[in-house]
Amino acid sequence: MSKFAFKLNAGDGAARTGRITTAHGAIDTPAFMPVGTAGTVKAMFPESVLATGAQIILGNTYHLMLRPGAERIERLGGLHKFMNWHGPILTDSGGFQVMSLSALRTLDEDGVTFQSHIDGSRHQLTPESSMEIQRRLGADITMAFDECPPYPAEKDAVAESMRMSMRWAGRSKKAFLKRPGHGLFGINQGGVHEDLRRESVDRLLEIGFDGYAVGGLAVGEGRELMFQTLDATVPLLPEGKPRYLMGVGKPADLVGAVMRGIDMFDCVLPTRSGRTGQAFTRRGALNLRNARHAEDSRPLDAACRCPACANYSRAYLHHLVRTSEILGAMLLTWHNLQYYQDLMAAMRGAIAGGTFKSFAAEFQTQQDQGDIEELSGA
Amino acid sequence: MSKFAFKLNAGDGAARTGRITTAHGAIDTPAFMPVGTAGTVKAMFPESVLATGAQIILGNTYHLMLRPGAERIERLGGLHKFMNWHGPILTDSGGFQVMSLSALRTLDEDGVTFQSHIDGSRHQLTPESSMEIQRRLGADITMAFDECPPYPAEKDAVAESMRMSMRWAGRSKKAFLKRPGHGLFGINQGGVHEDLRRESVDRLLEIGFDGYAVGGLAVGEGRELMFQTLDATVPLLPEGKPRYLMGVGKPADLVGAVMRGIDMFDCVLPTRSGRTGQAFTRRGALNLRNARHAEDSRPLDAACRCPACANYSRAYLHHLVRTSEILGAMLLTWHNLQYYQDLMAAMRGAIAGGTFKSFAAEFQTQQDQGDIEELSGA
Repeated sequence: MSKFAFKLNAGDGAARTGRITTAHGAIDTPAFMPVGTAGTVKAMFPESVLATGAQIILGNTYHLMLRPGAERIERLGGLHKFMNWHGPILTDSGGFQVMSLSALRTLDEDGVTFQSHIDGSRHQLTPESSMEIQRRLGADITMAFDECPPYPAEKDAVAESMRMSMRWAGRSKKAFLKRPGHGLFGINQGGVHEDLRRESVDRLLEIGFDGYAVGGLAVGEGRELMFQTLDATVPLLPEGKPRYLMGVGKPADLVGAVMRGIDMFDCVLPTRSGRTGQAFTRRGALNLRNARHAEDSRPLDAACRCPACANYSRAYLHHLVRTSEILGAMLLTWHNLQYYQDLMAAMRGAIAGGTFKSFAAEFQTQQDQGDIEELSGA
Repeated sequence: MSKFAFKLNAGDGAARTGRITTAHGAIDTPAFMPVGTAGTVKAMFPESVLATGAQIILGNTYHLMLRPGAERIERLGGLHKFMNWHGPILTDSGGFQVMSLSALRTLDEDGVTFQSHIDGSRHQLTPESSMEIQRRLGADITMAFDECPPYPAEKDAVAESMRMSMRWAGRSKKAFLKRPGHGLFGINQGGVHEDLRRESVDRLLEIGFDGYAVGGLAVGEGRELMFQTLDATVPLLPEGKPRYLMGVGKPADLVGAVMRGIDMFDCVLPTRSGRTGQAFTRRGALNLRNARHAEDSRPLDAACRCPACANYSRAYLHHLVRTSEILGAMLLTWHNLQYYQDLMAAMRGAIAGGTFKSFAAEFQTQQDQGDIEELSGA
């Protein structure tokens, strides 16, 4: 079994491309991780996820611990076998979702006690139990247990929360069971405050992790503040470890964050949008529900190789969205994941070729152009 | 382009196996047609429908005329191109569904005037307009426009309805535009009354069709009465034309009807059940929602080659059904269609080999056995 490792292959400005090695295979970075919340990337066969070029997916500790339960998944052979995904899996710690989804939660130094949003049953998440759950699931990359304060929040509250997350990071490291090919990532917090982000990085580096995530962003602060925070934080992170921007984002967020040295992303946007009729393209987002697509015989994007673009008209996709047909969710989710993976591959290529700056400029021009009507001919 | 034709290859008792040739390819009979109501076999890629062995699908005139509209589908190149299904398509006439789904309908000798169940808009279906709509859709097999009375109904009402359907059958034949490789089927009516069924057959034979459907069954009369009606009706139909039992049915219905000389079937059961967690198997139906599957690491049916059986445990399928994940509908629909197609292929083989009677007996034994717990080892 491979050692957990990260190798940088090329840099272009602050942007970098490299490869992470895990027990279940390699991940070329910058990488986008489709979200498989409850043990399935919604509306996708795992073979189709793989066909888009995805090399790693994300599983949600909070959802899986409640249903079907981590012990059950372990008894059934682990999450990889359970969901028929044989590549790497990163699991989040449950910290973010327990605060956003569960009812009647109580937070103290020990951890979070909460009621399930499904059946009201009582549960506890602590750094130690989160490590145990992620081990039972069989995560290749385990995330330290953290707390993410709401945005906006008073700086004192953000500082207090960050310091507790850093104590939890230390407990996570202690509780994490080392296994070959498996890594533990720490999560940087501190809101949009440069000094708190720096203090958080210092503490994480003292503890020492296999990778470093930037958490607590994309929670409402906006793109400009997010990029400012990355500008202040990413340079403090060690060059030789992967950097993961959690829960981000739109295509332009990915390009801007890669430009600032981020290596990994996850977001529900491509999958969730695929279920509501929104398609991401080279020329911006397209709402297939709109009546102007009703008789449009052109493909969504003639240059895309996904089945939605290869075999169907915009008129048909419009029809599926309007009639709430499951095939609409299947095709648009596939397209969106294909677009995200193609974007990541294009960024990796541009970084390797030393042309990332012009790639990013051209990307922005095309997105701003928004000339969707001409997309098939572009 | 091929001529529309039917060739009988072998018979075994009243059961027969043969091949229908159409403009979009051949159909081996007995055949089961998955239902693609609104231009999609729900939760299935068309490539997956094909992979199960299906050679023909059914489209619903009523749904498609309302959304996206037959004229629009014609302008977009026809239903085959629209939905990316390049095999044969049979369309129903809209007669059954306009009576069961639409509001404020008015029936007279001319046809049915009704309000859309979607947006309340007013429409008319007549034998002539049904033929035109099915031509615009591009159906390989067009169904005559008929009326199906509710069950139970007074015999006088059934007779009156049947006679109007036969007059409509004559008008359908006149209005049907003959094209190479395209066929028109008449629909036998008469409820559960042997004399009315006979009168209906006589009238249909006078008009002359490329195939003959038995309609108005599986509407609540029960299996015994349905089989009795087939026993009285099917022998009256010409041997050299395909016979289609509409809207049927459960696996045991298919076997019993094939034994009585039926060649074609359609039913929403395998697709609809796939979306509600019910799986059809050699040993009867299985409800995956049931808690007893929660930790069952065995496949649904180890002998089935569909992805649900090849790659997943019953525990995982249970989890998907419980969490209402789209992948659950995708996998169980695929499995059910695979089961139906495998059953049809097995019946064709048994008829060709002259062993249909023992096949049917063995089928019934296995279904009755219902020893689902032992299924994977069987």
